[in-house]
Amino acid sequence: MAFLYKAEPVRGEAWRRIFADRRPGLPFHIWPEPHDPAAIRYLAAWIPPEDLTVYPNLEVLFCVAAGVDQLDLSRVPLDLPVVRMIEPELISGMAEYVCWAVLSLQREMQRYLQDQRDRRWEARPMRAAADTRVGVMGLGNLGRAVLARLAPFGYPLSGWSRSRQEIPGVTCHAGAGELPAFLANCDVLVCLLPLTDATRGILDARLFAQLPMGAALVNVGRGGHLVAPDLLAALDAGRLSAAILDVTDPEPPAPDDPLWSHPRVWLTPHIASATGHRGGAEAVLANLDRHDRALPLTGLVDRTRGY
Amino acid sequence: MAFLYKAEPVRGEAWRRIFADRRPGLPFHIWPEPHDPAAIRYLAAWIPPEDLTVYPNLEVLFCVAAGVDQLDLSRVPLDLPVVRMIEPELISGMAEYVCWAVLSLQREMQRYLQDQRDRRWEARPMRAAADTRVGVMGLGNLGRAVLARLAPFGYPLSGWSRSRQEIPGVTCHAGAGELPAFLANCDVLVCLLPLTDATRGILDARLFAQLPMGAALVNVGRGGHLVAPDLLAALDAGRLSAAILDVTDPEPPAPDDPLWSHPRVWLTPHIASATGHRGGAEAVLANLDRHDRALPLTGLVDRTRGY
Repeated sequence: MAFLYKAEPVRGEAWRRIFADRRPGLPFHIWPEPHDPAAIRYLAAWIPPEDLTVYPNLEVLFCVAAGVDQLDLSRVPLDLPVVRMIEPELISGMAEYVCWAVLSLQREMQRYLQDQRDRRWEARPMRAAADTRVGVMGLGNLGRAVLARLAPFGYPLSGWSRSRQEIPGVTCHAGAGELPAFLANCDVLVCLLPLTDATRGILDARLFAQLPMGAALVNVGRGGHLVAPDLLAALDAGRLSAAILDVTDPEPPAPDDPLWSHPRVWLTPHIASATGHRGGAEAVLANLDRHDRALPLTGLVDRTRGY
Repeated sequence: MAFLYKAEPVRGEAWRRIFADRRPGLPFHIWPEPHDPAAIRYLAAWIPPEDLTVYPNLEVLFCVAAGVDQLDLSRVPLDLPVVRMIEPELISGMAEYVCWAVLSLQREMQRYLQDQRDRRWEARPMRAAADTRVGVMGLGNLGRAVLARLAPFGYPLSGWSRSRQEIPGVTCHAGAGELPAFLANCDVLVCLLPLTDATRGILDARLFAQLPMGAALVNVGRGGHLVAPDLLAALDAGRLSAAILDVTDPEPPAPDDPLWSHPRVWLTPHIASATGHRGGAEAVLANLDRHDRALPLTGLVDRTRGY
């Protein structure tokens, strides 16, 4: 019985130390170290090996990220449990990034920092948090944590998700039928959706047209949610005022991609949140314990919805 | 009996409407509208008229800002009460700005946005909020509100002020003797002090040398707190890693001031917070009520300490 890790190697070494302490009887291999495929019961990966049939005794596939869209789930046997990463650093990092992005947009920091480069000193009327309606698409662990961290600032908050959710202090909308009502009240739209066939390209011209004129976009989901040419057209038409993007498709954008240089786009290199070394290992270890005791795994992916 | 307003005229018109509703019997003049100096009982100003003796019946001088350093207090009769502005928008705006600045510094957004301009896509290791010690100089209404808004992010928090304060969850230091111990634990230093003879130039090379190597500075106090050449030298030496400044001396900085273009300085035009039109008027009206009833005024300046 052994554990195989196939992702960022520095984190792998950290996990190895933690596993040695907490599960000393479980051999821990970092890909591509030599290992016996038949001994592998657990695999943790960003992109797993293409052919999983070489691991006949695999019991759980752990994804090291919050999203599993980078996996080709069609190649993963249907009876193999796939587990998303849910851990505190991933959640706090996302809450920090989104608060930073929303504050930047509310307080027009793109314009002020451009003004600095132009040596212009000009205060503009301030839009209050109470007049800045923030809507979050995707109400899982990350979306809820983001909303909780935004609440003390006094932003009017709303949320949208596939299935009906209830969050105190947040106006929640569900399903395609309620999407227009949700969008009509978003001065800042935050995308935290999982990337599935149902959400790919959801941030497009049709959606932007339903936002209030001059709304702003924060995309911390996946690059595949966004139709980038539609965003650029919406920015240039004034339909949207600004965008802050932590994800693109592909990553990095091509050297001549206009996202790099658009004056109303801030781009960061997929750093909104990252799985913490210790937190990630602890989350996997806790799930190993649950697996031993035949309890439901935390973060188990529903293969029919794809997240 | 009349009220004279001498500050930003758009806000003056807003105040006039609110006063007409709430104190209909009190004539309200916006400088330089004609008025009988002997009738003026209350003056609200950013910079008051030089010679206050022309108002023989003046009872209270209201400052429209949180700080009174722009007043020449030596020209204000000692028995004339001077009142600072304390109102909700001023406080929430400051909390927003400082959270934005601290998040920007913790998450290295200066570097990431510079990377965008250089078309570089490179994630760096993330420093956790728990590893980013934030210290606030000045523990009045604004400092306390800033600390309360920073707390949910998990930053280790400390504070420093002239007189001893106690704030739950914040390590509080007081007086010159405890300044070194305070500074030694500030990865991000936030200046929210009042500007007095005792604090002018306090942000200098000697202070920077007591911060941890690579610390960052947020100045939302006054430009006069900062010795700008010392800051630039500290940044260039790597002693400080970054600065976010909302105030300068003078404002705006001269066109050739190196603060405009230093790659580790973000500069905003004194917009961290502004007195709200309604909130400011309500704060003054509440103090007029207190004055009528001979109650202590909220925000009364202690003339011996100068704030």
